Amino acid sequence: MLRFRWSAWRAASPDSRARALSSLQHLLTSWGSHSGLFSLLGHKGDLLLIHFRRSFDELNEAELALARSPFFDFCEVAHSYLSVVELGLYESTGKTYSDLTNRGVVPHSEEWNAGIQEVLDRQSRAMASRLFPEMPANPYVCFYPMDRRRGEDKNWYSVPMAERARMMAEHGAVGRRYAGQVRQIISGSIGFDDWEWGVDLFADDPLIFKKLIYEMRFDEVSAVYALFGSFFVGLRTLPDQLPALLKVD
Amino acid sequence: MLRFRWSAWRAASPDSRARALSSLQHLLTSWGSHSGLFSLLGHKGDLLLIHFRRSFDELNEAELALARSPFFDFCEVAHSYLSVVELGLYESTGKTYSDLTNRGVVPHSEEWNAGIQEVLDRQSRAMASRLFPEMPANPYVCFYPMDRRRGEDKNWYSVPMAERARMMAEHGAVGRRYAGQVRQIISGSIGFDDWEWGVDLFADDPLIFKKLIYEMRFDEVSAVYALFGSFFVGLRTLPDQLPALLKVD
Amino acid sequence: MLRFRWSAWRAASPDSRARALSSLQHLLTSWGSHSGLFSLLGHKGDLLLIHFRRSFDELNEAELALARSPFFDFCEVAHSYLSVVELGLYESTGKTYSDLTNRGVVPHSEEWNAGIQEVLDRQSRAMASRLFPEMPANPYVCFYPMDRRRGEDKNWYSVPMAERARMMAEHGAVGRRYAGQVRQIISGSIGFDDWEWGVDLFADDPLIFKKLIYEMRFDEVSAVYALFGSFFVGLRTLPDQLPALLKVD
Amino acid sequence: MLRFRWSAWRAASPDSRARALSSLQHLLTSWGSHSGLFSLLGHKGDLLLIHFRRSFDELNEAELALARSPFFDFCEVAHSYLSVVELGLYESTGKTYSDLTNRGVVPHSEEWNAGIQEVLDRQSRAMASRLFPEMPANPYVCFYPMDRRRGEDKNWYSVPMAERARMMAEHGAVGRRYAGQVRQIISGSIGFDDWEWGVDLFADDPLIFKKLIYEMRFDEVSAVYALFGSFFVGLRTLPDQLPALLKVD
Amino acid sequence: MLRFRWSAWRAASPDSRARALSSLQHLLTSWGSHSGLFSLLGHKGDLLLIHFRRSFDELNEAELALARSPFFDFCEVAHSYLSVVELGLYESTGKTYSDLTNRGVVPHSEEWNAGIQEVLDRQSRAMASRLFPEMPANPYVCFYPMDRRRGEDKNWYSVPMAERARMMAEHGAVGRRYAGQVRQIISGSIGFDDWEWGVDLFADDPLIFKKLIYEMRFDEVSAVYALFGSFFVGLRTLPDQLPALLKVD
Repeated sequence: MLRFRWSAWRAASPDSRARALSSLQHLLTSWGSHSGLFSLLGHKGDLLLIHFRRSFDELNEAELALARSPFFDFCEVAHSYLSVVELGLYESTGKTYSDLTNRGVVPHSEEWNAGIQEVLDRQSRAMASRLFPEMPANPYVCFYPMDRRRGEDKNWYSVPMAERARMMAEHGAVGRRYAGQVRQIISGSIGFDDWEWGVDLFADDPLIFKKLIYEMRFDEVSAVYALFGSFFVGLRTLPDQLPALLKVD
Repeated sequence: MLRFRWSAWRAASPDSRARALSSLQHLLTSWGSHSGLFSLLGHKGDLLLIHFRRSFDELNEAELALARSPFFDFCEVAHSYLSVVELGLYESTGKTYSDLTNRGVVPHSEEWNAGIQEVLDRQSRAMASRLFPEMPANPYVCFYPMDRRRGEDKNWYSVPMAERARMMAEHGAVGRRYAGQVRQIISGSIGFDDWEWGVDLFADDPLIFKKLIYEMRFDEVSAVYALFGSFFVGLRTLPDQLPALLKVD
Repeated sequence: MLRFRWSAWRAASPDSRARALSSLQHLLTSWGSHSGLFSLLGHKGDLLLIHFRRSFDELNEAELALARSPFFDFCEVAHSYLSVVELGLYESTGKTYSDLTNRGVVPHSEEWNAGIQEVLDRQSRAMASRLFPEMPANPYVCFYPMDRRRGEDKNWYSVPMAERARMMAEHGAVGRRYAGQVRQIISGSIGFDDWEWGVDLFADDPLIFKKLIYEMRFDEVSAVYALFGSFFVGLRTLPDQLPALLKVD
Repeated sequence: MLRFRWSAWRAASPDSRARALSSLQHLLTSWGSHSGLFSLLGHKGDLLLIHFRRSFDELNEAELALARSPFFDFCEVAHSYLSVVELGLYESTGKTYSDLTNRGVVPHSEEWNAGIQEVLDRQSRAMASRLFPEMPANPYVCFYPMDRRRGEDKNWYSVPMAERARMMAEHGAVGRRYAGQVRQIISGSIGFDDWEWGVDLFADDPLIFKKLIYEMRFDEVSAVYALFGSFFVGLRTLPDQLPALLKVD
Repeated sequence: MLRFRWSAWRAASPDSRARALSSLQHLLTSWGSHSGLFSLLGHKGDLLLIHFRRSFDELNEAELALARSPFFDFCEVAHSYLSVVELGLYESTGKTYSDLTNRGVVPHSEEWNAGIQEVLDRQSRAMASRLFPEMPANPYVCFYPMDRRRGEDKNWYSVPMAERARMMAEHGAVGRRYAGQVRQIISGSIGFDDWEWGVDLFADDPLIFKKLIYEMRFDEVSAVYALFGSFFVGLRTLPDQLPALLKVD
């Protein structure tokens, strides 16, 4: 998330503005369909860049490319979030675990690890496009990070796996009712950023964000175990809409 | 909420000041009766702009129009809040839910959704002016965001609907005693901003804000389940009062 | 609370400094005995201005008068607190409530409201000078905001009124033992600022602040239900002491 | 705690640097043995000044003397802490209280207050040098603020005095084992700053700070009732070491 | 952690940039194999420097050497962490304690202290290279600080030593399964910084950070007693990669 220095922008020469603008447009074009630019609502920032990438090196390269460009003279970095796209695998993982256990395989043995790895590889191949998504075309985005609660009494990480799987299945059922209206991309950030998950929602009608999250808030897993960070809402801005966005009086 | 850069303002030429001032006056006039400007008390900001709009696109446009104007050279964005005006529908929703249930309609079935949607549409038409309000004319405003508590023991989202409806009815009764003295506009921000609701109060006597909120603090729903963010208090400033507000020695 | 820009002050011409200084002295003189200036200890700010006023409009006017003055070029606003002077009326309110109840008056009926209003008006007249105080002449001030706890188990707003009155009476007894040594001005800020109350203490010996607050911390109401914000300690500075305070090498 | 503006320092003329440096050396010399300068480790600041003074007026004077000096052009105030040196008097106070009670003296009576005051005065005379200490000569300092917990279940201020005295005695026994290795100066800040106590530790080997505080963390009083703020670690810098500390390439 | 002032960097002359760059390269070379530079992902900073040193004086010297260099004109300090490398000695310490106790040695007696010291010295000699490590060569680093929980109910410091040792052994077993994939350096910061421990992880594949920490989160000691601060992820940057990293358009 970036703050745009409107005052410096207005004070800059038309030439500087044109050069800066074209450097950002050039970057957006070169990044292609796995990056997206959004105009943020409110004081948390003016611009939001979302980058889906195959590696941290490519993410770092995207970040540095912007920092090195003339457009960055008019930006201040306000926020960021680092995470890895994840598939909700409670169901299939549960099945794999019980299969292996039924076959008498010892957890963490070589055979066990091979069994798990095989399933993960199969899923990764099957779901490659979900793991490295293109930017959805919807005009509205909502991003927020979240944690599972680790309270003194209510602690997600002390709940047995079967219980967790049951609650996640219930939670998933609510999400599926909104399948046609919201595109959800869930990413994990344990070890990468200050919350455990990041959620990107894309929709054609932003009110759907509120309906979905409000309804989910009464799920057992959300009601009892979900903690939420800041919410960011943005409007998709295509490269050729940039001159209009940044036009000054 | 904006901080005004008094020092830069004083250092600016009379021409720059006149141009900046007239750009803000022009914006306020063009925004009309659904936007309002307030002089904030205290260090949280100098100016507060409230925009009621029909869409996030129009809100973004209002935000950008200010950012693009010469007046914005003398501003720093201090805070903001994004939410959607909401009607307190616990009562009617409860009635709809029990009607549908009594008629044997299955929750989330097509018939159920149609029944709910019909009621919502009827209410939206009946209450259109409440959902897209004009700025009240009262000279004082109080804004604050709030959450329903999701504690380990006391968790609003784990309370049965009938219990929640009972507490909300009690809470509403207190509010209605202040109906002639305070105009309340409640907005929901789940999925949009960092708290769950935003509250705007408008009054002719600011002491009423304190009386109302103090009395409500003893309601069961507020005492046990309400968490409050920062409070912002402002004095309405009309476009033609701006020159006096920003006059410098 | 203001931070003073010492570096800009030192760099300014003697003329600018003289003009800025005299603008602040002029304001202090015009504000008279209901405003006071203090030199703050520590990093939370350099100067503290306390304004007692009859209305929010007059408070806003004081704030704007400073912002418009040349002295403000050397200031950054660090903090503020907005509240309304309050009398501790648990005792008399309790008496009024029980009198009205004994006479069979229905709470919130017209007769009830009139009975309450009559008592409040009588008290306001009797205590007008306490509600709109002059700045005490003591050389030391201590300000802090506080809340009554609204915890999941220990929640002031769920405690019956008689219990609250008993605890407040105990608390008041401690305060009265310090009556000759500390002047306390309690103000309420529910609906106005981020804590529920603000406390101003004035004394000739600042160690008294610590003794009083330490002793009170063991009262039941403070031990169990008081939550404290930041503490600010300042030394009274009269207008004619300003040149010495702001003299530079 | 101060941040040093290295960039401005490097850009300044040798003359400005010399004048600034000598102004700080002059202040340090004039402050004498009750003030000390330290080079801080980490991002919380570059320089730490500790001032022991007999009054808040003298503390304010020290703060202002630095602010008025040319050296301050290269400083930003990052943090501070205001507190009063305290002796751990649980033991002797307990004894005085029980003596007075045994003699039938009524708490808070004139006789009681006189009895307490007499003991306090006797102790103050006996321990004058501990109440107004010289800066220890050790090369390392560790400062941190702390609170006694006031939780909903575990609340220090609801624990009977005898229990508190017992826990403090245990806690003191740990501290005494480190007597030869660490010099502890405990100060109280209830009513003065945002935590209840400040702790200054001085040692010849900084690892002792960790050993002492780690061992104490298992004391009942620390384990259950201690809450800690930020930790600051610095290296003593004498006035004649300043040119080497602030030498630039 | 440092923020890099890209805008100033771009505006600087090629000469200034070359001088600044070579000053940092010179420092990195002189620091040798116990310091490492990383390019940080996200808004928490642009550069991360990790220094392993034998003393706080040497750490302070490294910090000051950077501050005094021309490269620092393009830096802002964003964060830091001060800690001392630690070996997980629950097992051996437990053994030493029980040996001494079995031999009837009184805790904290001279004999006890000598027994403990002898073991610590022996371990320090045996593990000197682990206590003063070289920078691992892996391309990815993950740093985060953590605490053991001191809650009102769940309090690590009130748990008996044998229980703690059991939980730590379980925790260690998980870590050992990742031994070939992650290099862990645990450091203690009680008395030095705002959390109790700092963790540095080094790996050839950053996804391992997430897998390891996610799996550990279900350990009893982590699930119930671990609290985590901010996570920082960086990519190793060698001195000769600096010109490419900081190249501008």
